[in-house]
Amino acid sequence: MPSWEAFLNENQPRFIDELKQFLRFPSISSLPEHAEDVKQAAEWVAGRLRAADIENVQVLSTGGHPVVYGDWLHAPDKPVVMIYGHFDVQPVDPIDLWTNPPFDPIVKDNCIYARGASDNKGNLFLTILAVEALLQTEGSLPVNLKFFFEGQEEIGSPQMPEFLPGHKDLFACDMVISADGGQWDQDQPQLTVGLRGLCAVQIDVRTARRDVHSGSYGGTFLNPIHGLARIIDSMRDSEGKILVEGFYDSVRALSESERAQIAEIPYSEQEFKEEIGIPETAGEPGFTTHERMWVRPTLDVNGIWGGFQGEGLKTVIPSEAHAKISCRLVPDQDPGKIADRLVAHVKRYAPTGIAVEVKPVESKADPYLIPLDHAGNKAAVAVLKALYGKDPYYIRKGFTIPVCGILLSALGAHTVNFAFSLKDENIHAPDEFFRLRSFELGQRAYCMLLHELGG
Amino acid sequence: MPSWEAFLNENQPRFIDELKQFLRFPSISSLPEHAEDVKQAAEWVAGRLRAADIENVQVLSTGGHPVVYGDWLHAPDKPVVMIYGHFDVQPVDPIDLWTNPPFDPIVKDNCIYARGASDNKGNLFLTILAVEALLQTEGSLPVNLKFFFEGQEEIGSPQMPEFLPGHKDLFACDMVISADGGQWDQDQPQLTVGLRGLCAVQIDVRTARRDVHSGSYGGTFLNPIHGLARIIDSMRDSEGKILVEGFYDSVRALSESERAQIAEIPYSEQEFKEEIGIPETAGEPGFTTHERMWVRPTLDVNGIWGGFQGEGLKTVIPSEAHAKISCRLVPDQDPGKIADRLVAHVKRYAPTGIAVEVKPVESKADPYLIPLDHAGNKAAVAVLKALYGKDPYYIRKGFTIPVCGILLSALGAHTVNFAFSLKDENIHAPDEFFRLRSFELGQRAYCMLLHELGG
Repeated sequence: MPSWEAFLNENQPRFIDELKQFLRFPSISSLPEHAEDVKQAAEWVAGRLRAADIENVQVLSTGGHPVVYGDWLHAPDKPVVMIYGHFDVQPVDPIDLWTNPPFDPIVKDNCIYARGASDNKGNLFLTILAVEALLQTEGSLPVNLKFFFEGQEEIGSPQMPEFLPGHKDLFACDMVISADGGQWDQDQPQLTVGLRGLCAVQIDVRTARRDVHSGSYGGTFLNPIHGLARIIDSMRDSEGKILVEGFYDSVRALSESERAQIAEIPYSEQEFKEEIGIPETAGEPGFTTHERMWVRPTLDVNGIWGGFQGEGLKTVIPSEAHAKISCRLVPDQDPGKIADRLVAHVKRYAPTGIAVEVKPVESKADPYLIPLDHAGNKAAVAVLKALYGKDPYYIRKGFTIPVCGILLSALGAHTVNFAFSLKDENIHAPDEFFRLRSFELGQRAYCMLLHELGG
Repeated sequence: MPSWEAFLNENQPRFIDELKQFLRFPSISSLPEHAEDVKQAAEWVAGRLRAADIENVQVLSTGGHPVVYGDWLHAPDKPVVMIYGHFDVQPVDPIDLWTNPPFDPIVKDNCIYARGASDNKGNLFLTILAVEALLQTEGSLPVNLKFFFEGQEEIGSPQMPEFLPGHKDLFACDMVISADGGQWDQDQPQLTVGLRGLCAVQIDVRTARRDVHSGSYGGTFLNPIHGLARIIDSMRDSEGKILVEGFYDSVRALSESERAQIAEIPYSEQEFKEEIGIPETAGEPGFTTHERMWVRPTLDVNGIWGGFQGEGLKTVIPSEAHAKISCRLVPDQDPGKIADRLVAHVKRYAPTGIAVEVKPVESKADPYLIPLDHAGNKAAVAVLKALYGKDPYYIRKGFTIPVCGILLSALGAHTVNFAFSLKDENIHAPDEFFRLRSFELGQRAYCMLLHELGG
């Protein structure tokens, strides 16, 4: 019987062909017309799990896009580890910026190009291949294993907060390993230990019954755009500190060692500015860019609109103006409470003379932190050190993966991030790609990780 | 030979039929696909002038929508009076709110319903009918008369600033009588003696090269919407006083008698609020609603946009945000200078960390005032007193009719407003109508006015 290493080496051409099959499903979860494609992708994943000798494979209904489950539970006295990933993808707009059609995968310069290649189909699929390699070559797994693959990550996993608590026994596990994430760069591993949370509100300002002529009525009542601008401007000071009362009350202070850990991670102001194309960085005083990005909460207007947006001039005083505002949250801020504080702030600062409605948006997520010394983290660090020859950076992410918080509250299980995307792979953008080197490295990494966890 | 009064009485049924013909042209000047309809309406007007024995009738090219000219110049030693009106109309959106199709005129309850009925085809057409009545019954006119009817009023008369100075001799006159306007109500005449001017700028704020994820980057640079909100909020204080440096410098102070004249005009706070559906009035401290509306300058954001405007949440930091801002101006503010001051203000208050572009919008107009004792005003007042049995209110309008300023600077001629729309006739809105009573009253009023001017 060959080693799992040899098995992986021999089968790469087949695995790449199979990944192409997987990438051909336009499983865009945000577009209702692609719901059937999301389902087809789920069925494909289920079939591939069965082919890898995973047992009890099921496609489960959620009320929205489905979930795929499978398990292999024949390692008594070993932990139950659950692998997480998602088979839905982002939309492909702007479609004309793609060099190659997004759902017609091609390999070029040892990279595979397609929507979902990096986020998350490539990373998801490699976990199945690692398990197949172990079962084919060793006849068993070093741990008890479950798979939890969802089809709604890109829309914020809306059904998961109800679905997971409703299937507690099926998904019960000691820890979750998430295949949704990446490494610092090709030569430097990372371990993600925290994610920011999220809450959001929408503000709707109304004045006159309908749009009125700015000549006939201008000057006699408050233009809703002026009222809205005043409210928005009241929420942050000129440097970026958030002025919403009580906003920072529950923010856990950074320890000196946490700040030192962040400070160790390389940062070039010039490269950062060039990366996103900004004239200068700005933000909450007293914090570095990495701290502002990972461990400090934010308040951003994500969209604003009111009145005339066309060419030229239309001298109207609009009857309405609107803004969507979201906050990234950090431990121990509570999304519901912060949303309430936003609502209270808007009501307090709303000028008289306009009708202001402000309501929380449904999407919200707790900030997430996994203890540095969690057993899963230790195993991941050992594997990353072996593969890369150096310690990983301990980083937090500024964004939100709602399912981490949901898994923790529903199952009591922390999520270890263990995945192999790299920053430049155009996720959520045209010409998304995944390095075949990462695809193959990830398969080996998962074989090693399962052994480490079972050891 | 019958009197002009009798002629008018006898011919009302024919005039109404002809007005219906005129109203059937969908002469919407703002929509390129209706350019031919504007031209057809011009040809119809030209034909109708010829039928009324007006001479030298021409449809003149302007580079945009055409102008119709005609004259009758056989009254030696009498003034040259030019009648102004426009045969273009506003768009008809929202079309489903019309009870009857907008270009299929019907008469109901002694009103004629159609787009343009009140603004301005009904008022324009009645001037031709008055002249026809005088020529048919008296064989001559009491003054020398020219007609200047344009097809681009609803889009701000963009070609007129070049066209009129280029045809100075053709349009030379002692005064202009504008058929574009109205009366206070059915029982109360008004004389419009001033109009506000206009200038505008667009602000374009840019930061990152493209929209970025608010989780990945939120907190590290200035969101352009926050920058824009700050700029907008810096332009007015909380009560509505405009804070742009030098904005009020050239505003001519109101005399006590001017304030008294305005104060005489009835105003009900409750009715005003109900008319436009606002919770309360607001504006520059120290001035009444009529003063804020007619004789004080304004600054209004007419439109704002940036980022995500759809349903739900998209946690993006947009790369751009935009606003259109316009000011209504009063004597002696200069539109060009005020636009420069707006630009300077935006540059001064633009936060660092964002790229701010601000540029004047082409549309601009001088504020307009006609001397109270202008000969045309005196004649108009005499006719209005005779018809209504009371003095008119001397009012100003908050809006802008660019052609008044253009006529003054190009021809040295003031414009007397003499027209018969009423406020409730849904101009620029669905179910526009014109009272047939006003249509017939206007014909008589113009006969009387021409006699008054010739007397």
